[in-house]
Amino acid sequence: MEKDFEYIELFELYKELLTEKQREIFSSHYLYDLSLSEIAEPDGFSRQSVYDAIKKVKSKLTEYETKLRLYEKFSALDSLAEEQSEDVKARIREIIGK
Amino acid sequence: MEKDFEYIELFELYKELLTEKQREIFSSHYLYDLSLSEIAEPDGFSRQSVYDAIKKVKSKLTEYETKLRLYEKFSALDSLAEEQSEDVKARIREIIGK
Repeated sequence: MEKDFEYIELFELYKELLTEKQREIFSSHYLYDLSLSEIAEPDGFSRQSVYDAIKKVKSKLTEYETKLRLYEKFSALDSLAEEQSEDVKARIREIIGK
Repeated sequence: MEKDFEYIELFELYKELLTEKQREIFSSHYLYDLSLSEIAEPDGFSRQSVYDAIKKVKSKLTEYETKLRLYEKFSALDSLAEEQSEDVKARIREIIGK
């Protein structure tokens, strides 16, 4: 579960770099909690193909984080924001979208 | 020139998303100031192919900024950092890599 939570955080940061179909499949499974079969059936895909697509999205998300380290940077900024005045905290969080 | 400067800033932010060859061509032209012919000749490419490759890199950089807005976000954080104490300023700049 811990691991899934991490992918959801990465998805929020990098979803614009994914294709529309990849966003749709990932959201259906992780945000709307649909099963692989529930995602596959309406489009006539196999459960395995949905599994593979999600695996690919997770691999892309990990690759983006390795390359850009936005989760790491924004987490560090969020911790720093926590120590600042309410005004500065709010401004930092607005910029990083927290 | 203004425009080239912007691409150099975007390149620093997104270069990890480019291929090694794209990074090499862009750096040769914009950071090491080689002409298109100078970049093309050693590898036996045409001047036009180097021009096209640079154009493609610029288009990718613009696309990444449209999608992730890191230049916009890091610039806003840099301005905010400017108003803070030396310690906070230094910490913010270290996180965003300025």
